[in-house]
Amino acid sequence: MVDKTVRFGILGCANVARKVARAISLSPNATLSAIASRSVTKAENFAAENNLPESVRIYGSYDQVLEDPGVDVVYVPLPTSLHVRWVVMAAEKKKHVLVEKPVALDVVELDRILEACESNGVQFMDGSMWLHHPRTDHMENLFSLTNSKGIGQVHFIHSSSTKPTTPQFLDSNIRVKPDLDSLGALGDLGWYCIGAALWAKGYCLPATVIALPDVTRNAEGIILSVTASMQWDQPHQTIATIHCSFLSHTSMDLAICGSNGSLHLKDFIIPYQETSASYDFTFGAKFANLHIGWNLRPEEVHVANKIPQEALMVQEFARLVASIRDGGSLPSTKWPEITRKTQLVVDAVKKSLELGFKHVAL
Amino acid sequence: MVDKTVRFGILGCANVARKVARAISLSPNATLSAIASRSVTKAENFAAENNLPESVRIYGSYDQVLEDPGVDVVYVPLPTSLHVRWVVMAAEKKKHVLVEKPVALDVVELDRILEACESNGVQFMDGSMWLHHPRTDHMENLFSLTNSKGIGQVHFIHSSSTKPTTPQFLDSNIRVKPDLDSLGALGDLGWYCIGAALWAKGYCLPATVIALPDVTRNAEGIILSVTASMQWDQPHQTIATIHCSFLSHTSMDLAICGSNGSLHLKDFIIPYQETSASYDFTFGAKFANLHIGWNLRPEEVHVANKIPQEALMVQEFARLVASIRDGGSLPSTKWPEITRKTQLVVDAVKKSLELGFKHVAL
Repeated sequence: MVDKTVRFGILGCANVARKVARAISLSPNATLSAIASRSVTKAENFAAENNLPESVRIYGSYDQVLEDPGVDVVYVPLPTSLHVRWVVMAAEKKKHVLVEKPVALDVVELDRILEACESNGVQFMDGSMWLHHPRTDHMENLFSLTNSKGIGQVHFIHSSSTKPTTPQFLDSNIRVKPDLDSLGALGDLGWYCIGAALWAKGYCLPATVIALPDVTRNAEGIILSVTASMQWDQPHQTIATIHCSFLSHTSMDLAICGSNGSLHLKDFIIPYQETSASYDFTFGAKFANLHIGWNLRPEEVHVANKIPQEALMVQEFARLVASIRDGGSLPSTKWPEITRKTQLVVDAVKKSLELGFKHVAL
Repeated sequence: MVDKTVRFGILGCANVARKVARAISLSPNATLSAIASRSVTKAENFAAENNLPESVRIYGSYDQVLEDPGVDVVYVPLPTSLHVRWVVMAAEKKKHVLVEKPVALDVVELDRILEACESNGVQFMDGSMWLHHPRTDHMENLFSLTNSKGIGQVHFIHSSSTKPTTPQFLDSNIRVKPDLDSLGALGDLGWYCIGAALWAKGYCLPATVIALPDVTRNAEGIILSVTASMQWDQPHQTIATIHCSFLSHTSMDLAICGSNGSLHLKDFIIPYQETSASYDFTFGAKFANLHIGWNLRPEEVHVANKIPQEALMVQEFARLVASIRDGGSLPSTKWPEITRKTQLVVDAVKKSLELGFKHVAL
């Protein structure tokens, strides 16, 4: 009997790797086979702290994971500036790659990654977990223009991702270091907001992007807070506003308004709880006589999930890998395309900032 | 015994006048004394349809209300382009004026109105009803920087006001007619969004305003949909995005995010129901271990109101008028100042549109 399980190796012991190690264990078609850190002691501690099974091979260098024939997939939660080097090397070793967001510092780097994956026939996906929650699919049905009980034409999208940080974070975290994650909050948080706007528009790229004059940077010039807008032209004119910040209280809002209805979430990136998530949908709202109230309130729609969204991401990735490995399928182009469009908008926001808040055409 | 009741006259039988006629009857210190239309039949029908008491005097011209010595206050729900003429005339007749929004087509017109009120010693207020709901005061406490359980510094504000309209409306309603309400959706709906952003900033004017390239106009050039941003500088840097449209499903969102907490409403202009309203407040949110959920959900805070917000507006206006009429007080400058700041931002958005989406300093 062929083992249908897809074997994962993890490069680096970042915090998010703990979450993904657990997700691999919760996914029915994946298994964790190896972890590596630049120090074997650190990797051993990670294995102990996370109760990894003894079968997991522990390495003191990333190369060893890439050389391990018992690893199908490499999960890469390294600082962004290291992605291009390690992901290209992994692809050349025929490892499929699940790469944390932001995937690259710009689309030039990203294209090196995607070309390496394509030429080596390996699957690529970025680590945007929320796209794998069944709530996301559920809401997607509301955008179908054949759904007469849906949102209709999407006219307006607002998305935010903010989280408070400590002075220590702003001074020394990899997410605010020019040599590690030079996109700062735009990469770490804005990635989600941009991704949500693209998702709501069926991954149609906006015609133009503009950063608003609200940017905050640290002493090294890294973005701590930024607000931007994306515009789509006729015939399906839409505007999106996005806001991300390391300086505010935790928020992750998504509000979408269309011709027929509207959608609201306050937990779109990480649902309040693991086993179900909800969204508010308003459809057919009218005012009462004399406009002294509404005829209805938003409907709170609950969507249950058997395993957490990050495990669903692992499961989907492992499914694609298994059909390449065992079934001779080609890698799916869906996920790399989503990543590339997200990166193009990230780049456009950055360019608008550099140009002094000018409009940037895509 | 002196009659403490303040006597209202209504100029014109607009739809909103029905709501305010009811509000006057619900307000403990106000009474409706007169209504006028350009046709006495129309005024008689209005009185019959709204079950107005027989004591209400019915006039076939606006001037008659202004000449009526039994009227203290004139409520003006006329098309915006007529405001300056009738409000100035009313003030000269020593009538206090409650004026529907948008108050004027620009701040030059507004200043003629406000100067007429000031020089005649009469009270001015615009018809922004939501400011009078106790929910608004309740939320205002969350902005106080001495409130350690509040929002903290306000960093981001988003506000929308959209409503669907019919082709007939877009073709012929006064709100889209160049000679009547040439501000279109910016005046009718954007007034609220701008007002909400100013309110959240304690009525500090933004440093700059920019319209985003998302405007839609009808054949006569009237704004049907517009998106804009307001920016406040250091030391209390904030950005607001506003969106208003006659082309989308009904929405009236207000989302505010600060250093310590966030606030969300989906019915800020007209509460879902008349007798109480709520808002969602999130404070001290953290992620669970491994970031697999949140430590809390937003708290839904309910605020009851004995009479509807429009009656609270009438009550507050009548209170101010009574203390001028009976107590020799001076008119309050609070309400004209709020109106003037709102109008300045409306004008700045319009100017930004005219300049091709350029930044406009205030």
